[in-house]
Amino acid sequence: MTDTGVTFINVIELPAEAVDEFIVHWRERVARMRSAPGFRDVRLHRALLPDSRFQLVNIAHWDSAEDCRAAGADPIVTASVAEAEKSAVAYPSLYRVVAEYS
Amino acid sequence: MTDTGVTFINVIELPAEAVDEFIVHWRERVARMRSAPGFRDVRLHRALLPDSRFQLVNIAHWDSAEDCRAAGADPIVTASVAEAEKSAVAYPSLYRVVAEYS
Repeated sequence: MTDTGVTFINVIELPAEAVDEFIVHWRERVARMRSAPGFRDVRLHRALLPDSRFQLVNIAHWDSAEDCRAAGADPIVTASVAEAEKSAVAYPSLYRVVAEYS
Repeated sequence: MTDTGVTFINVIELPAEAVDEFIVHWRERVARMRSAPGFRDVRLHRALLPDSRFQLVNIAHWDSAEDCRAAGADPIVTASVAEAEKSAVAYPSLYRVVAEYS
């Protein structure tokens, strides 16, 4: 496989009651990032149970780490993230797939 | 969309130097869980950088929450997980996709 794509995973710790508002602003950020070079797709996952530590997990695919970092450095995106982090603790990182079964 | 599938996400905190051995045993567990009813697919993601808090993120899809929980309750799987958790802290939860863009 020669695909050099990367997976961006952001694990987000926030109270279940703060999730709905977080999603509103998340959609605004995504609307901007979707048009950035190298964007492939994104899915936002919400915990089935309200007592899960990480209520949201954002998983996106990008052509490269550089593309993902460049999109995240957009001033409008960083301002929105800073606002979101007032009510959430986020752990964003880049990953590659090391094993896969279906 | 009438698909009732769920996403199992396990966020794993462990030192970068412990990752390779963790993956060996992870593969053994997956070999068993793949044949369980309702299993769809699984991908193990490894952080690009050794200082990311969560070095591994396991993402699997199942037909239902019940199928996923039943597979995880297999005594051989639970024994292997207990062994793995001697050197790792894991945060497993079930999720549903609440937003998706491509």
